[in-house]
Amino acid sequence: MTLRVTIWNEYRHERRRPDVGGIYPDGIHGCLAERLAAADLTIRTATLDEPEHGLTEEALADTDVLLWWGHTAHREVEDAVVDRVAARVLGGMGLIALHSAHYSKVFKKLMGTSCSLLYRDIGEKERLWVTAPSHPIAAGLGAYFELEREEMYGEFFDVPRPDEVVFTSWFAGGEVFRSGCCYARGQGRIFYFRPGHELYPTYRDANVLRVIANAIRWAAPVRREAPRYYKAVPPLERVPDRE
Amino acid sequence: MTLRVTIWNEYRHERRRPDVGGIYPDGIHGCLAERLAAADLTIRTATLDEPEHGLTEEALADTDVLLWWGHTAHREVEDAVVDRVAARVLGGMGLIALHSAHYSKVFKKLMGTSCSLLYRDIGEKERLWVTAPSHPIAAGLGAYFELEREEMYGEFFDVPRPDEVVFTSWFAGGEVFRSGCCYARGQGRIFYFRPGHELYPTYRDANVLRVIANAIRWAAPVRREAPRYYKAVPPLERVPDRE
Amino acid sequence: MTLRVTIWNEYRHERRRPDVGGIYPDGIHGCLAERLAAADLTIRTATLDEPEHGLTEEALADTDVLLWWGHTAHREVEDAVVDRVAARVLGGMGLIALHSAHYSKVFKKLMGTSCSLLYRDIGEKERLWVTAPSHPIAAGLGAYFELEREEMYGEFFDVPRPDEVVFTSWFAGGEVFRSGCCYARGQGRIFYFRPGHELYPTYRDANVLRVIANAIRWAAPVRREAPRYYKAVPPLERVPDRE
Amino acid sequence: MTLRVTIWNEYRHERRRPDVGGIYPDGIHGCLAERLAAADLTIRTATLDEPEHGLTEEALADTDVLLWWGHTAHREVEDAVVDRVAARVLGGMGLIALHSAHYSKVFKKLMGTSCSLLYRDIGEKERLWVTAPSHPIAAGLGAYFELEREEMYGEFFDVPRPDEVVFTSWFAGGEVFRSGCCYARGQGRIFYFRPGHELYPTYRDANVLRVIANAIRWAAPVRREAPRYYKAVPPLERVPDRE
Repeated sequence: MTLRVTIWNEYRHERRRPDVGGIYPDGIHGCLAERLAAADLTIRTATLDEPEHGLTEEALADTDVLLWWGHTAHREVEDAVVDRVAARVLGGMGLIALHSAHYSKVFKKLMGTSCSLLYRDIGEKERLWVTAPSHPIAAGLGAYFELEREEMYGEFFDVPRPDEVVFTSWFAGGEVFRSGCCYARGQGRIFYFRPGHELYPTYRDANVLRVIANAIRWAAPVRREAPRYYKAVPPLERVPDRE
Repeated sequence: MTLRVTIWNEYRHERRRPDVGGIYPDGIHGCLAERLAAADLTIRTATLDEPEHGLTEEALADTDVLLWWGHTAHREVEDAVVDRVAARVLGGMGLIALHSAHYSKVFKKLMGTSCSLLYRDIGEKERLWVTAPSHPIAAGLGAYFELEREEMYGEFFDVPRPDEVVFTSWFAGGEVFRSGCCYARGQGRIFYFRPGHELYPTYRDANVLRVIANAIRWAAPVRREAPRYYKAVPPLERVPDRE
Repeated sequence: MTLRVTIWNEYRHERRRPDVGGIYPDGIHGCLAERLAAADLTIRTATLDEPEHGLTEEALADTDVLLWWGHTAHREVEDAVVDRVAARVLGGMGLIALHSAHYSKVFKKLMGTSCSLLYRDIGEKERLWVTAPSHPIAAGLGAYFELEREEMYGEFFDVPRPDEVVFTSWFAGGEVFRSGCCYARGQGRIFYFRPGHELYPTYRDANVLRVIANAIRWAAPVRREAPRYYKAVPPLERVPDRE
Repeated sequence: MTLRVTIWNEYRHERRRPDVGGIYPDGIHGCLAERLAAADLTIRTATLDEPEHGLTEEALADTDVLLWWGHTAHREVEDAVVDRVAARVLGGMGLIALHSAHYSKVFKKLMGTSCSLLYRDIGEKERLWVTAPSHPIAAGLGAYFELEREEMYGEFFDVPRPDEVVFTSWFAGGEVFRSGCCYARGQGRIFYFRPGHELYPTYRDANVLRVIANAIRWAAPVRREAPRYYKAVPPLERVPDRE
């Protein structure tokens, strides 16, 4: 049985800005769908301007891991869809929030914090250090990898303390950032991965793709005996009499 | 300078149910205000039925640590007040969520999860084990303490993994619970403390009071140089030329 | 390629005590080897009384995940072997420490703490609650599982704060325990799993076996580009002149 | 009652190398003792070449928080003293390990890992970002502070995952480092603080001194009811009959 992956993309920059469209002619979602293709994955895409943003109840019920890229139109995402996605994550679906998705409604709702950070876009060098070397999301990587040109995101990143920080970024301009953050929430798992500004070909970088591929497998739902929640009050036979 | 503490209470059960009113004739807030009194604290109270629930901008600006008890009327708390409290926590105010406040709007918003749990009220024994013995919230306690009669709350408690679990409860009926959970959120600190069902005199228990007293000091805002956030993009002089 | 598993057992109780030998006629290692057998695993065993305790350089070089059960003869394990095992864990080998292995030299060395705990053996009921439902070690389990008769281990368990607590035990006699503890150490992963007193048939319990089977896969080494460590001082071209 | 602080220093570089002696004419311990002086602290010092390295049973029994600086003579520290210090930390004494103390016997023993890291000394700029803004060790600081010239320490820092990472360093040459690491161990608390190479006047820097001063208060032992450990097996009255 394959893992069912849905790649969600806002898909506005690519259609409106020739510089972005030139880098991602099929959209960021199209680029990722093509390059993440693998025998153990069934990949589909969804975008903001589809009905219900392409995230109907049926689509989510058929998704094991959801990737999310958004930037300019976070506010256009309907609250009902946000609530649906968040509930599904708490129910076990994996979520991989990419780059500017730190400010997406769904990520902020699941984090409970402002998710604010510093930023600057001058196309500077980013070096991502592996700070959790035994973590499966770091599989296949060396001590670090680099992106020659990226937007800078800097600390303090106002998120809950991650369960694991797989990558910590160094930026040429003087900042650091927790760039690969793992969270367990409810029955599900969340991975935030920092790189991916739309003006650079980051999602064609081999190391970035490897990280996302690893993260999809890591975020796969854990199969548990139904019902996952222990809904009823348990039998009381072990309660001693309190006369 | 003293620490400014506001004790917020829903204050419905005590007025409507004689059994609860008998235990807490001045309300849970009144009981706590009296028993937590100390030279280094300035304590005031606020309740649901006051204008803006007693949590005006001015009141919150004058609060370092907020205690919260609610149960039957979570839905009556106005969203504008919830947002105000949550923003203030992210800005540095301490929050101590007591017992059924796990389902309060403000706690759920800050956690980002369902905050659901098992429960059963048969007045069974709870034994709270110290599982973080070097934590200041455990100061003055032994290896464990007991409450002869309490409501049971059981795992899985659907909250983010706590930064520290100071207490883990054993219940006579067969359940365990992470009963003292520490969180850093934004510039602020949150402590969730499990005991405190309205039908038992839990807030007159010396150990419970000691824990809450310790937690108030632990949750006090850390004074930082203003501005706490680094709002502007930093100077770029350290970015090497990329020509 | 299969995962290479070595099951290490002290193997003294089973040969010396008929009550234990009756439960585990082939030793705890033999019982586990038989019941954990799977197509993706290559399992071998090793015991204390073999030369170098069966843990030669070659044997460890050929091991991906090591299970460890010991109790009465921790002191007989040679320090050179302990150092070799610990170094191999830091280099990436998984380690699963079972029950009384909390006091083994290798576990204590890797934890850096006393690893002390409370204990009592009256064959009481243990109920293990899942407190990390999205963790792969909990796969296939319900909200909890029970062992009708086990030795009790109680808090405070003097170990470093676990990276994850997958199970929290309730004991009939009044104690709780963090029974499934995950640690990253160096390039390797460690899982401590509490149950397994030699007087009870715990290692024939289907849920216990499922947990150990899950843990073996979780603790498998992550393949990284060689060299895993970044040994040389990096090139300095990015250091600005300090004239 | 004041907090009893012992500042331990190897005190070799300062006596043997004029460049270091010029920066710290009274030794690093002397500099720190003078500059950390405060009404709530009773400070004494101890050095390697004193009998028992100045860390007799009596001296440790009279110490609440121990600071440790060592570099060139880690191997000369006697194992008996190392064991004594480590046992005292597990019993509740705070430990603040400074800079090259990452390789001290006592720190390595308490961590259980290699504590290795990258390093390079070209006197480059270090910028320490606050990554836990609500932590009391960050009190009084802004978003970051800088040291114009320091030795570089880089990831992967082979230590257990810290309970909190208060500071993350950026180095001009391309590395990052978890520079302020908090650990609970046994009844005690440990803080590792990265800066402090002997060739730079780091321990005269106001921000560095503020961090160390904050850490001393944070690491102070928590007073608990004696005995801290629950030594005896508990009464069994709550164990139901197992007929």
